[in-house]
Amino acid sequence: MALERDSHVALYQQIVNQLIAQIRSHQLPPGARLPTIRAMAKALGVTRVTVQNAYDELQSLGWAEATVGRGTFVSHHPPIAHREALVGPSWGQLMTADAVIDDLLHIHQLQAEDHGTIPSLALASPDPRLFPVETLWELIDDLHDESRALLCYGSPQGDLRLRYALAGSLAKRGLNVLPEEIIVTNGLTQGLALVTQTLARPGDRVLVEQPTYLGFLNLLRAQYLEPLGVPLDDEGPCIEELERLAIQYRPRFFYTIATYQNPTGKTVTAKRRRELLEWSERHGIVLIEDDIYGRLSYDGDPPDPIKTHDRSDTVIYLTSESKVLFPGLRVGSIVAPRPLHERLLALRRATDLCGSQLTQRLLATFLEQRGEQQHLRRVLPIYRRRRDTMLAALRQFMPKGVTWTKPAGGFCIWLTMPNTPTLHDLQQAALQQGVAIAPGEVFLTKATEHKHIRLAFSYEDEETIHRCVQILGQLLSERLRTESYPVLTESWTPLV
Amino acid sequence: MALERDSHVALYQQIVNQLIAQIRSHQLPPGARLPTIRAMAKALGVTRVTVQNAYDELQSLGWAEATVGRGTFVSHHPPIAHREALVGPSWGQLMTADAVIDDLLHIHQLQAEDHGTIPSLALASPDPRLFPVETLWELIDDLHDESRALLCYGSPQGDLRLRYALAGSLAKRGLNVLPEEIIVTNGLTQGLALVTQTLARPGDRVLVEQPTYLGFLNLLRAQYLEPLGVPLDDEGPCIEELERLAIQYRPRFFYTIATYQNPTGKTVTAKRRRELLEWSERHGIVLIEDDIYGRLSYDGDPPDPIKTHDRSDTVIYLTSESKVLFPGLRVGSIVAPRPLHERLLALRRATDLCGSQLTQRLLATFLEQRGEQQHLRRVLPIYRRRRDTMLAALRQFMPKGVTWTKPAGGFCIWLTMPNTPTLHDLQQAALQQGVAIAPGEVFLTKATEHKHIRLAFSYEDEETIHRCVQILGQLLSERLRTESYPVLTESWTPLV
Repeated sequence: MALERDSHVALYQQIVNQLIAQIRSHQLPPGARLPTIRAMAKALGVTRVTVQNAYDELQSLGWAEATVGRGTFVSHHPPIAHREALVGPSWGQLMTADAVIDDLLHIHQLQAEDHGTIPSLALASPDPRLFPVETLWELIDDLHDESRALLCYGSPQGDLRLRYALAGSLAKRGLNVLPEEIIVTNGLTQGLALVTQTLARPGDRVLVEQPTYLGFLNLLRAQYLEPLGVPLDDEGPCIEELERLAIQYRPRFFYTIATYQNPTGKTVTAKRRRELLEWSERHGIVLIEDDIYGRLSYDGDPPDPIKTHDRSDTVIYLTSESKVLFPGLRVGSIVAPRPLHERLLALRRATDLCGSQLTQRLLATFLEQRGEQQHLRRVLPIYRRRRDTMLAALRQFMPKGVTWTKPAGGFCIWLTMPNTPTLHDLQQAALQQGVAIAPGEVFLTKATEHKHIRLAFSYEDEETIHRCVQILGQLLSERLRTESYPVLTESWTPLV
Repeated sequence: MALERDSHVALYQQIVNQLIAQIRSHQLPPGARLPTIRAMAKALGVTRVTVQNAYDELQSLGWAEATVGRGTFVSHHPPIAHREALVGPSWGQLMTADAVIDDLLHIHQLQAEDHGTIPSLALASPDPRLFPVETLWELIDDLHDESRALLCYGSPQGDLRLRYALAGSLAKRGLNVLPEEIIVTNGLTQGLALVTQTLARPGDRVLVEQPTYLGFLNLLRAQYLEPLGVPLDDEGPCIEELERLAIQYRPRFFYTIATYQNPTGKTVTAKRRRELLEWSERHGIVLIEDDIYGRLSYDGDPPDPIKTHDRSDTVIYLTSESKVLFPGLRVGSIVAPRPLHERLLALRRATDLCGSQLTQRLLATFLEQRGEQQHLRRVLPIYRRRRDTMLAALRQFMPKGVTWTKPAGGFCIWLTMPNTPTLHDLQQAALQQGVAIAPGEVFLTKATEHKHIRLAFSYEDEETIHRCVQILGQLLSERLRTESYPVLTESWTPLV
């Protein structure tokens, strides 16, 4: 150890720094005894007080421990602040759940630059082959003249022309809002992150449909919020359970995908929507309405969003262009009651300043040319046929004991199987046979059940869908034959 | 009040709903007495138990209060859950500080589609007239073939080709990192939001330079973190103060813009950088190094980032293309120690899934063609001349008693003036004379001082800079003449 006499750093501090360096590099291992104060002072040519100060400092920082009469020892644990800073606050819920792993898989598949060798029923994503890419691309050149301004920082609320266009789009969905009432976000997910962070704080309880969107459960975990699941009956979220949970837990909000839900494809009835609104008003609990699938309707007009009947300002409405047009443009939007609107905008400004003006203006010009209506007219019949193909294949190939939902829109069908151990590794088994599916448990607040899978009919063509369901049906039939199991009578499905 | 006998909603619940509706619409004002149970039961043709249940429910929800012997009254305050849900958790620090207002102003000015009538020394932003727009635009057509894939969901970590290009860019800054060690973010601000949310929880104390980046103070407010300011001396953040604060408050991290700081233009010396690293290692407190201005060097090579000497993995490094190339592309990056890297990536995935692949790939192709080096060769001499012009104008026009920093890079100069009341409305006064400046107090953890302004020399041409400083100098001279004030001898500037 060498000390610099003319340093600006005090001698005792130099001793501390060098000892810590030795501890960190394990030259001084945990439990090692430091030299006595007298020996150290002699070796370094400093006073004993200097060494004493250094040892005291090491102790107060947590790098060393002293035992009276025995001496000073290197601590068995590095200082708490150091450990905590590197692993982050330990809130009890970490982000390493299987949901995240699945999310990774999900994303990795999406990364594939074309439809890979493994056909996927796992992705609730529009088919990239149907993207109106050429129409969009023609509009890019028109932005050249404005490009300098579009490459500057933009408005945290979003490009005004885009907000006008989105207001027009929302009007077609029955929602009459002004451009200044809309906040543009980086996809619907950022909108959800802003809303949850504004409404709740770590440790709070919140309500979600059971099952619900995997990404939202992941977000709640990241924000240390505790989700309580509300079962869905044939009309929608069970009101009796909402009543009980509202009174027992005082949750901060209820998150609902009321129209063509992910993962079930279910739609909340008009009557239940009214009851949900009444419940929300009665308890003063905010409804977060995720309408991302609302325009993907295959059997007549979609139902009005709950927000259209929100007279008491208790509903926050979110949607996005990711399922209808292009997921990669990362454009979503929020319509919130006035006081919340201001807070959401402030939080958006604080957390990422603004989105890309260039992509926002590009989408604005696309929407201004009625590109969305044209595109929907083209793709809705295609997705409808894919849904019908999947439903027909399910009827043809699924063994007895397996049931599924019949969605009127969106991308998802939810299968319920007997809860038998031979089906617990179904995802892996299907993957080996060349079919990717999403295991149902990642859509649950707790992954306790293994009797569901989510199938998406949006991503592959009809032939592939038929073939994949056939493979899956055969797999399920084999697995169910290998074991006798009690057939469940499910007049009311408790968790789905 | 009318009850539906054949409704699925229980009678007592219908009474509750209708009374709440009347309370919300102020037909029943706060303090109003509800009918007695007997009268209500008679009027509605229900049992007294039903009414009793309804009144009990109203009380338990907080809509009504009962006083024994006097009856049931409409509560003077709506239920807590309702109030809290709409205003959000009240953490003591709200987001309505003047910093936010200034931020708004800031953003609004940036929104202007060209250089408006009011020249601005308020914006620490590159001059849009210098953007390499044509080079970028030529590259867009090359993306056409891949556009379908680029419009899909992308990787939460960022486009791999962009990460390769950014690794090359970081290598020029002396940082040798692999593409897999980089997380691409929506501008540096999102990176800061992810880092602070990962390292700290609401209520925690954190350290910042005093003064520091306005947007970061705004972010801390939004996340309910308490910033403690560390004064800057001639070498950088004051180590003695860091020692004291580390021991007294156990802060979660220290945020430093070590090179060409915003707002002061100061640069931490090599010696102080070493001391900062030692301090960080000793206390196990993470250093967040914001290097956004690091490449904008006017007097020889910039100093190495602190991260290049980080042997103990205590430094998180962030940078962005917003000051060098295009703010509007919203591309920043994080390089973090391994355990934190994983957590940051998980949080990024949870909070906005991924960025826009299209803009990321566009920037990647720009960087691959050495566009950044070319651009820097072109603009650094221009920004250097603008800095020199501003410094010369300050010498020429500023009255005695006003001092300023002499930055070797970046965009900002920090003025210190006598702390006299005649200067407190300087921002407004300057604006009336046609010059926008940033008031210094919004860069402080507490807006207690009004003796600083930040001038940016990046956004306007030399002639405008000269003219604006002249106007400002005249304004200051007039204001200082109107009052005799004590000239402060500032051998050591306590807060700057």
